[in-house]
Amino acid sequence: MKKQNILLSSVMFFGSICFAQTVNDFKPAASNQPGKQYPQVNNEGRVRASILAPQALKVQLDLGGKKYDLTKDERGVWTGESLPQDEGFHYYQLNIDGASVPDPGSLFFYGAGRWGSGVEVPAKDQEFYALRDVPHGLVSENIYFSKLTNAWRRCFVYTPPAYNKNTKERYPVLYLQHGSFEDETGWAVQGKANLILDNLVAEEKAAPMIIVMDNGYANKPQDQGAIENKTRPVSIFEEVMINEMIPMIDTKFRTKADREHRAIAGLSMGANQTIRIIMNNLDKFSAIGGFSGTSNYPSADPVDPATFLDGKFKDGAAVSNKIKLFWLGLGTKEPNPFPASVGAFRTMLDKQGIKHVYYESPGTAHEWLTWRRDLKQYASLLFK
Amino acid sequence: MKKQNILLSSVMFFGSICFAQTVNDFKPAASNQPGKQYPQVNNEGRVRASILAPQALKVQLDLGGKKYDLTKDERGVWTGESLPQDEGFHYYQLNIDGASVPDPGSLFFYGAGRWGSGVEVPAKDQEFYALRDVPHGLVSENIYFSKLTNAWRRCFVYTPPAYNKNTKERYPVLYLQHGSFEDETGWAVQGKANLILDNLVAEEKAAPMIIVMDNGYANKPQDQGAIENKTRPVSIFEEVMINEMIPMIDTKFRTKADREHRAIAGLSMGANQTIRIIMNNLDKFSAIGGFSGTSNYPSADPVDPATFLDGKFKDGAAVSNKIKLFWLGLGTKEPNPFPASVGAFRTMLDKQGIKHVYYESPGTAHEWLTWRRDLKQYASLLFK
Repeated sequence: MKKQNILLSSVMFFGSICFAQTVNDFKPAASNQPGKQYPQVNNEGRVRASILAPQALKVQLDLGGKKYDLTKDERGVWTGESLPQDEGFHYYQLNIDGASVPDPGSLFFYGAGRWGSGVEVPAKDQEFYALRDVPHGLVSENIYFSKLTNAWRRCFVYTPPAYNKNTKERYPVLYLQHGSFEDETGWAVQGKANLILDNLVAEEKAAPMIIVMDNGYANKPQDQGAIENKTRPVSIFEEVMINEMIPMIDTKFRTKADREHRAIAGLSMGANQTIRIIMNNLDKFSAIGGFSGTSNYPSADPVDPATFLDGKFKDGAAVSNKIKLFWLGLGTKEPNPFPASVGAFRTMLDKQGIKHVYYESPGTAHEWLTWRRDLKQYASLLFK
Repeated sequence: MKKQNILLSSVMFFGSICFAQTVNDFKPAASNQPGKQYPQVNNEGRVRASILAPQALKVQLDLGGKKYDLTKDERGVWTGESLPQDEGFHYYQLNIDGASVPDPGSLFFYGAGRWGSGVEVPAKDQEFYALRDVPHGLVSENIYFSKLTNAWRRCFVYTPPAYNKNTKERYPVLYLQHGSFEDETGWAVQGKANLILDNLVAEEKAAPMIIVMDNGYANKPQDQGAIENKTRPVSIFEEVMINEMIPMIDTKFRTKADREHRAIAGLSMGANQTIRIIMNNLDKFSAIGGFSGTSNYPSADPVDPATFLDGKFKDGAAVSNKIKLFWLGLGTKEPNPFPASVGAFRTMLDKQGIKHVYYESPGTAHEWLTWRRDLKQYASLLFK
């Protein structure tokens, strides 16, 4: 530690000349690999990257849609930092002489269609997803064969802390979906769904529940090559969920296997999917959470209930009667078309007299802190 | 796919000039990220890496202790390949102008003290750890607080396919440990412990069992800074296992909580640890598996049972009587001191009349294919 601190101090000293306006309280990110000193984050949310690349001509930190040039010191170590970032979790990468690579200092996360680096900028409300001294549930990797897609699939299943003790108790189930270019690992890793629920359950702010996190991509076997052929394959995710996933979960886990005790939610693409799924399957689910997305995405046009989703919202009273909790969330910094599209959807709900809860995550964009907060809010209202 | 195949063919065409003696049947490795074309492996076990790095001066593939120079094409893509590698799993990295980074094409694995790239060279016997159409158990992430280390710990727990159905059945438990600079993720990811057991159980070649894969590093709270201070902290892994881990597992899971139904095994450092642990705790375990290591490591000197491990092997008959299965394994290509050290240990066992099973993995070194095979052999003899 001593040696590293001396090195660190020298970086900081030289650094302080170039970055006179930067607050120099950088600390290794919580999302780093064990023992790794970089990347670091300061109190303003700036991310400082550092990597040894003695023969490189140019090294950049690629974060939040911007590339920041790093500066080389006499030892061949390149260091530099970003502008202040929003609180929460961000995907990023390094660029070394034109090669886009993961930062060897960070843990790796699946997002943006790849396993790559991520960095956690501490949030003021981070206690709700922190690893705290409360009873913890399990997150189980569950592999199953899907006949509809003719492929192996995987979901992660969170079971609440008491699940393995109360072996006669059955639990309600939330099916929780990721966004586009993400996968079934997202909610339990960068989403911290298990810790959020452990903390809520410990404070008796949420009912103990099972959470199923599956992969939102599912194509017919004959469509496997569709993406490569630049045609858009027809998603059969709904069929997989209804005909394969739910029966499998109800067999393998001690669920309360009825619509009153089954909820669904998703973020972005997952919100779009799950709102469609509940409207097609009101006999299966009684609650819906749409995080940063609705089924009219990307349109911001007025939603006509007579035609939208084959008129599924036409009879507002019937929908209100069936859906116990209709919940929508958005970050205050999300770019269009999200606010406009979600807004158009909400206007339609209001016009149809369909009650819904609407939550805004302060200061966050289309990223994981928005969705962690959404889950906390949504889960605390479920199955009550 | 078509476009990629054309690109691929052109690489192969140019490649064939430089690598005239290489068999050109390269295929994307099974360990790649979804949809990623590189790295590739050919029938000889050569690994071909490829990365876009238009401004780089030098790019290398760092694999198996050798660095292979890649060659740049007119598009700025660097490509090149290694000498033939042993069958099985290998950690590797790329080197771009002096920066050691993960290959963005591969999945990431914890080994060599970091999360980084790995590549799977297909083995002739790979069916035993393949994802096959058999019932699959769960691998559950289990977080717990350790008072002895004053830290959060994590283990992964494999439960056999029938565990969630036969809710009154109790199961024997194998505690399975990783090697040095690896962690609790190793056995279920690159070790494929769950698939190996799923396949064995499906063929009725192993008893259904729970497998607990924990982290082998455990220090007293006051020793947390020891590594940084360049002192070697005293491991309290044995105390954590006996006093915290086993009671926790016996509470959370439906175990057969007695020595007859509790086994222990480990690889390399884990073999060293677990042989010590069973000899100190013969009331807790009835079987031991030592994969590529024994407790006299790194010494190849004759082992004196009068003094070794405080004379724990002195009474050979008593040891034989207590330990139902004493199992040792080694790869035929392992470098010294492993063969000599394990050999010296075996000589001692023979001298003391302690029966043991000894297995050699053909054509593998101190790597994961050796240990996958060890687990298959060992598990098939356990709890019978």
